[in-house]
Amino acid sequence: MKETIRVGIAGYGNLGKGVEKALAHLDDMELKGIFTRRNPDLLHPASGVPVYALSAAQEMADDLDVMIVCGGSASDLPEQTPWLAKYFNVVDSFDTHANIPQHFARVQQAAEENGHLGLISAGWDPGLFSLNRVLAESILPQGQTYTFWGKGVSQGHSDAVRRIEGVADARQYTIPVPEALEQVRAGNNPDLSTRQKHTRECFVVLEEGADAGRVEKEIKEMPNYFSDYDTTVHFIDADEMKASHAGLPHGGFVIHSGKTGDHTETIEFSLNLDSNPEFTASVLAAYARAVVRMNQEGKTGAVTVLDIPPAVLSSHSREELLAHYL
Amino acid sequence: MKETIRVGIAGYGNLGKGVEKALAHLDDMELKGIFTRRNPDLLHPASGVPVYALSAAQEMADDLDVMIVCGGSASDLPEQTPWLAKYFNVVDSFDTHANIPQHFARVQQAAEENGHLGLISAGWDPGLFSLNRVLAESILPQGQTYTFWGKGVSQGHSDAVRRIEGVADARQYTIPVPEALEQVRAGNNPDLSTRQKHTRECFVVLEEGADAGRVEKEIKEMPNYFSDYDTTVHFIDADEMKASHAGLPHGGFVIHSGKTGDHTETIEFSLNLDSNPEFTASVLAAYARAVVRMNQEGKTGAVTVLDIPPAVLSSHSREELLAHYL
Repeated sequence: MKETIRVGIAGYGNLGKGVEKALAHLDDMELKGIFTRRNPDLLHPASGVPVYALSAAQEMADDLDVMIVCGGSASDLPEQTPWLAKYFNVVDSFDTHANIPQHFARVQQAAEENGHLGLISAGWDPGLFSLNRVLAESILPQGQTYTFWGKGVSQGHSDAVRRIEGVADARQYTIPVPEALEQVRAGNNPDLSTRQKHTRECFVVLEEGADAGRVEKEIKEMPNYFSDYDTTVHFIDADEMKASHAGLPHGGFVIHSGKTGDHTETIEFSLNLDSNPEFTASVLAAYARAVVRMNQEGKTGAVTVLDIPPAVLSSHSREELLAHYL
Repeated sequence: MKETIRVGIAGYGNLGKGVEKALAHLDDMELKGIFTRRNPDLLHPASGVPVYALSAAQEMADDLDVMIVCGGSASDLPEQTPWLAKYFNVVDSFDTHANIPQHFARVQQAAEENGHLGLISAGWDPGLFSLNRVLAESILPQGQTYTFWGKGVSQGHSDAVRRIEGVADARQYTIPVPEALEQVRAGNNPDLSTRQKHTRECFVVLEEGADAGRVEKEIKEMPNYFSDYDTTVHFIDADEMKASHAGLPHGGFVIHSGKTGDHTETIEFSLNLDSNPEFTASVLAAYARAVVRMNQEGKTGAVTVLDIPPAVLSSHSREELLAHYL
C-alpha cells in the first residue's frame, strides 16, 4: 500500500518547478525525472533529478507511475497530454474551459487504449472551483453560483498590455468588487454585469519616450480584455516593478446561495494564494497520487477532479481518516 | 439512467421535515414514505406521503432505493442505521465524532452482508467540513487546519442551560472570535486556546421568581460547556425569545493555511445557514442520490463523504458537467 509513487514532470516552467517543490514534501511520492523540449544538458533542477528529452519520454514508460504534464493550455497540453497518456498515467492543468470536452475525449481514447488513467484540468479553476460548484449546486439546486477571481495577477492580461507599443513591462491585477461579493454573500442572487463583478488594475513600465496618455487609452479601450471593466493604470519604473510586483499571487471565491424552504443558505469556498503556480502544482501532485491509486485498482481512461473521491487524494489510511478527519 | 430514485425518511423531526422539503425540489428523487416510531395515524406530513411504522420498515424493502435515517446520534442512529442497512441503502448524519469508527464498522457489516450501501456522517460537520479538511491537507500537507463554528445555535448547549433550575427557556449561540479568524486567514498558524477561538452568548427566559444572578453564575461556571469560554448571558422574556430566537441558524469555517516553498497559501470553506436542519437535510438528499448510483454500480458496505466522487452527487450528466461545470 505504501509503495513510493514514481513521478515525472513534463515541462520545467513555473508550474513544473512548483511540482518539484511540492513533491519534496511528500513522503509517498518521489520525483524520478524532468522531461523537457529544451536541451536537457542546460537544465539544472533544484532537486538534482535527471533531466531527459521529452521526445524520448516513452523509453521511461516502465519507470514512472505518473507523469505530471506542466505545459501551457494553448498549444502544449492538447498535444502532450494525449501523447503521454499512451505511455503513462497523466495529470494536467488544461484550463481552456471551452475546449475541455474535446481534450477529455482525446485523453480518454489514448489512455483507455493503453490501460492508463489521465486526469485533466486539475488545479483550482478548473479544478477545486469546479468541485465546489458541483458540490454546492448538488446540495442546493434552488440557487445560484458566482465565481470571482482575485485579487491576483492575470498573466493573459499582463501579456496583452505588454504587447502595446511603448510598454516595456506590465502587471495586471484582477480584483473582485467588494460590494458585489457582499451582495452575493447576503443571498440576494443579484444580476451582475462584467463591470460590476471585477475591476482591473495595471502597473506599467513605459519605454523611454512613450506617450503615457496613449498607452493608458489603448489599455482601457482594449476589447475583450479591458473595455468591459473599470480599469486603473499606474505608471511605475522598472525598480518598483521588480520590488513590488515580482510575485504571482492569485485566488478567488466560489459562492453559492440557495433556498431550503423559506431559508437562505450560503456555501463559500475561497483561495488566497501567494503563489498561483506553486499552489496549482500542489493540487496536481495530490491528484497524481489519486490517479496512480485508481489506476492500480483498474480504472482507465480519462477523469476530472469531479471523479475523484476525496479519500483517494490523502496520504492517510481509511482508519486514520475515520478516526481523525470526519 | 434517469429513473426516479425512491426515497424513505426514517424519523420526522426537524431533520426529517427538512429532507421532505429538499426532495420536493429534486426531479430525479421521489419521497415514497415516512417511517416513525410514533403512531403513524397521528403524523400528517406536508407532502401528503404515506406514514408507516418504523418497526415494519422491512416490509418496504423492495419499494425504496434508499432510506434517509433522520434520528439523533445519541441513541437513535447507533441502532437504526445498522438495522435499516439490512433492508435498504441508507444515509445518516451520525455526528458523534469519537464513535464514528465503531458506527462505521456496524453499518459496514450489516450493509455488506445484504448487498446494500450505507453512507454515514453526512451533513456539514461531519460531512462537508470533513471533505474540506481532507482536501486541504492533501494539497498542502505543510500546514494547519482550523475549524470554527457559528455564528449559530448549539442545541446541546441550549439544552444544558435549560436544565438549570429556574430557567424556563434558553438559546445558546456559538460565535467565532473575529481576531482569531483574521490571524488564521493571515496564515500565521497561531496556537489558539478554546477561549481564544469562540465566545458563547446565551438568551435566557427565567421562571417566575428565579434568581438571575445565580443562574448566570451556574451557566458561566458549567464545566465542559461554558467554563472554558467567555460567556455573555442576556435575560429576556418569552415574547422576545419567540420573536428573535425561534430559528436554528448555524455555520462555520474550515480554514487551512500551508506553505509551498516560501509562499503561504490559504484555503477557506464556509457556511452561513439560516436553517441548520434544512441545510443538513439537503446534504443528506444529495448523498442519498450518490449512494443509490454507487450501489447500482455494485458498491456495497459502508462509506463516508470522503468516498464519494463529486460527479456522483450531481443530477447532471457527465457531458453537462464537462461542458459547463469545470
